Amino acid sequence: MQKLSNNELNRPAVDDYKSQQKLPYVIILDQVRSALNVGSVFRTSDAFNVSRLYLCGITATPPQKEVLKTALGATESVEWEHRESTVDLIVELKSKGYKVYAIEQVRNSISLENFDAKKEPFAIVFGHEMDGVSQEVVDICDGAIEIPQSGIKHSINISVCAGAVCWEIYRQLKFNK
Amino acid sequence: MQKLSNNELNRPAVDDYKSQQKLPYVIILDQVRSALNVGSVFRTSDAFNVSRLYLCGITATPPQKEVLKTALGATESVEWEHRESTVDLIVELKSKGYKVYAIEQVRNSISLENFDAKKEPFAIVFGHEMDGVSQEVVDICDGAIEIPQSGIKHSINISVCAGAVCWEIYRQLKFNK
Repeated sequence: MQKLSNNELNRPAVDDYKSQQKLPYVIILDQVRSALNVGSVFRTSDAFNVSRLYLCGITATPPQKEVLKTALGATESVEWEHRESTVDLIVELKSKGYKVYAIEQVRNSISLENFDAKKEPFAIVFGHEMDGVSQEVVDICDGAIEIPQSGIKHSINISVCAGAVCWEIYRQLKFNK
Repeated sequence: MQKLSNNELNRPAVDDYKSQQKLPYVIILDQVRSALNVGSVFRTSDAFNVSRLYLCGITATPPQKEVLKTALGATESVEWEHRESTVDLIVELKSKGYKVYAIEQVRNSISLENFDAKKEPFAIVFGHEMDGVSQEVVDICDGAIEIPQSGIKHSINISVCAGAVCWEIYRQLKFNK
């Protein structure tokens, strides 16, 4: 099995990427402390065709050096903006018809394998590395999605978590599965 | 929606975790340079119930400080061993009936959404951050799995990639989807 060269991968140029149709959902990072995690979510959003990334509150923004380090160029391709208040943003998105889901372990959460990404448009909220999405933000969301897991740890890293969630949504919407 | 406390999550203790039945696959890290990535894969393997982690060649091993930093205790729960030669390990696993798949962009790869995790047991090989899985290792694998993606970048980070792949396998095997 011959490995493909970068040319053979046929990745779009930045301008072509920007004009591609995106998947009908946005990601909200609510108080994500680590700039490396923010950069990683940029790179994942680029790969999995996320419409827009909202960086809220204390979340690091480009061109902060550590964001650029893990984004590896994806800050140029992914549409993003900073918002001071996550609550105000969610109220705005809901008024535009978005359903908003926190990635969080709460009573009556939706287990990720049962989340139906075909009910569009929607927003996914990832929270602080230690504290998760704040209760105040959880309270105004339409629902919460929980990643089921079997391990001793209470959670997985936010970058990894975004990888699992964005893959699940991409799989459903891109391949109609 | 009330957030759950750590107690309410009912995570197993290390000894209970070790005696749990694991999913019938192993992960091979082939020349993964970053100890932080290795630790992250430990944490992901713990969450998604991977049987064993093989750290090959130059891949960092516990108790290296940066592995422990991102593993957050998962080096205690996940079974692991170091092997010098990835090729020798793959030959050994194949002789025991494992199918071995590289996560790599090659001609005639299996796109992740088409991978059937129910054909057990199997091994998944993740490679070097820049160079991927070496051609020598790819050549002795039974197949390659590729993560389809739409972005400008040629790849996603290995920790994120492991999150997507391990979630896909967990979803299929744990929930029979």
